[in-house]
Amino acid sequence: MYGLIGRIEATPGQRDALAEILIDGVSGMPGCLSYVVSVDNERSDALWVTEVWESSELHAASLTLPSVQEAISKGRPLIAGFTERHVTTPVGGHGLA
Amino acid sequence: MYGLIGRIEATPGQRDALAEILIDGVSGMPGCLSYVVSVDNERSDALWVTEVWESSELHAASLTLPSVQEAISKGRPLIAGFTERHVTTPVGGHGLA
Repeated sequence: MYGLIGRIEATPGQRDALAEILIDGVSGMPGCLSYVVSVDNERSDALWVTEVWESSELHAASLTLPSVQEAISKGRPLIAGFTERHVTTPVGGHGLA
Repeated sequence: MYGLIGRIEATPGQRDALAEILIDGVSGMPGCLSYVVSVDNERSDALWVTEVWESSELHAASLTLPSVQEAISKGRPLIAGFTERHVTTPVGGHGLA
């Protein structure tokens, strides 16, 4: 498995709009076992995106999907920065669809 | 929803044993929508635990379950420290069981 844990800083006031774009863009991605978008309770403009994929190759392939390309181009103006990014190897747990 | 994103530092050489204890201890927790244990690809002793719960109350209640109590007491000697902890409000996504 391949995992990503990232914190994205939205431009002021655009956090919820960005979250909606991210959530809408990621349905039905082959090899995606989990993709959760969360608001940070202590940082008003921050979103966390936690992802689990069957493999790094399937994650890379998802970036070429039309729905993902569209989400990237709609979301980009609402992003102030990517402030944390951790690449992981998920070992197990609960809720891996 | 209620979320937690945490990084745990295991004592040297105990990362995989700790991951196994965490994964074994968390099956069948009421209100748990996602609980993923991952190895950090760049920090050899670090684990990430990403959690999504229906509510903070159900998360708090899980800490009193015998299986979780047992995992905590077995895992504690293998933990060097809790190095990051972010409380979140998950908004949506994929893989919330």
